[in-house]
Amino acid sequence: MDAPMSEPGPLTDLVKALRALPGVGVRTARRMAYHLLQNDPQAARALSRALSDAIEGLVHCERCNGFSQTPICVVCSDSGRDQSLLCIVETPSDQNSIEATHNYLGLYYILMGRIAPLEGVGAQELNLKRLLDRVSDGRVEEVILATNFTSEGETTAHYLGEALRARGLKVSRLARGVPAGSELEYVDAGTVAWAMMERKPA
Amino acid sequence: MDAPMSEPGPLTDLVKALRALPGVGVRTARRMAYHLLQNDPQAARALSRALSDAIEGLVHCERCNGFSQTPICVVCSDSGRDQSLLCIVETPSDQNSIEATHNYLGLYYILMGRIAPLEGVGAQELNLKRLLDRVSDGRVEEVILATNFTSEGETTAHYLGEALRARGLKVSRLARGVPAGSELEYVDAGTVAWAMMERKPA
Repeated sequence: MDAPMSEPGPLTDLVKALRALPGVGVRTARRMAYHLLQNDPQAARALSRALSDAIEGLVHCERCNGFSQTPICVVCSDSGRDQSLLCIVETPSDQNSIEATHNYLGLYYILMGRIAPLEGVGAQELNLKRLLDRVSDGRVEEVILATNFTSEGETTAHYLGEALRARGLKVSRLARGVPAGSELEYVDAGTVAWAMMERKPA
Repeated sequence: MDAPMSEPGPLTDLVKALRALPGVGVRTARRMAYHLLQNDPQAARALSRALSDAIEGLVHCERCNGFSQTPICVVCSDSGRDQSLLCIVETPSDQNSIEATHNYLGLYYILMGRIAPLEGVGAQELNLKRLLDRVSDGRVEEVILATNFTSEGETTAHYLGEALRARGLKVSRLARGVPAGSELEYVDAGTVAWAMMERKPA
């Protein structure tokens, strides 16, 4: 599936550029390119503009490390939020999931990744020094570790928990247990075991 | 997974624009957006540029309907090719597959799709009038139907075969049979049946 000599340059370039998207191989990139050029040039123009607008218009918020149009993002500059609570998540999607509960009124720190030794991502690569500076603002009292419950997420939570407790902060982790609305028969054994271990007085 | 109020506008716009890509839902679009912004802004810039270059720089070749930088593409303007042979394919990828054989020296016509009644794609939508004009140039003698061997591809081949034969052209179809290098034990029954029916004197 290499580009043949007869393929026009801009098409070859577009296929190559689309391959930079995660999970997109050469066949998918070709299908995407043909689809945009043949059926939806308007969408291709919109995507071109959206990409350059996002690259030029977004920075990392100085406080939470999330994407923002301003040096301090809207969440971090909301004075109605509880400045003593800081929730650490892996990605902006995770932040969205927590915001969707309309139940948490503290602030966030977005790691933009997780510690994954097998992929060569350590504390250095995640720039955890920046997080440690952030929690030392004198206002944060409790840090909620909301990294994923995958092995990388747990490793990250463990590492951060150690470092944050050493700074005298209260550290908590999202509760593990049976998901809302689920029947025990269909919940995996690991989850039931956790729920049993962390049972609460009723 | 709707965009929360706190998400910066350019990020929401980028996620929306990425969803125009075939097979990309909102979760994948978000992952793509975060990846580009966080890890590869250079690739995002390149993709933005490649999209607008392709949209501005490519037209449909007036003869073969493929993508081209010039009104007549490099293949169609190659006087070394056999002007009496025209191979009809569904997409530029299919053309690439045939070019990769270095064995076919005729010309092409690219349908940019196939007849798919269930998707509302008929002869009208494929602009087959343009193909019928193309084959009436007085030089084409044989048309090779190289649409896919799927049900839509076969329908398209059947429809085109009728219309082209009615114009007095010789019409052929790619051979069906056992793929090169394969063992009969592992070839599906339909293919073996075809190969048996279309057996040739050895």
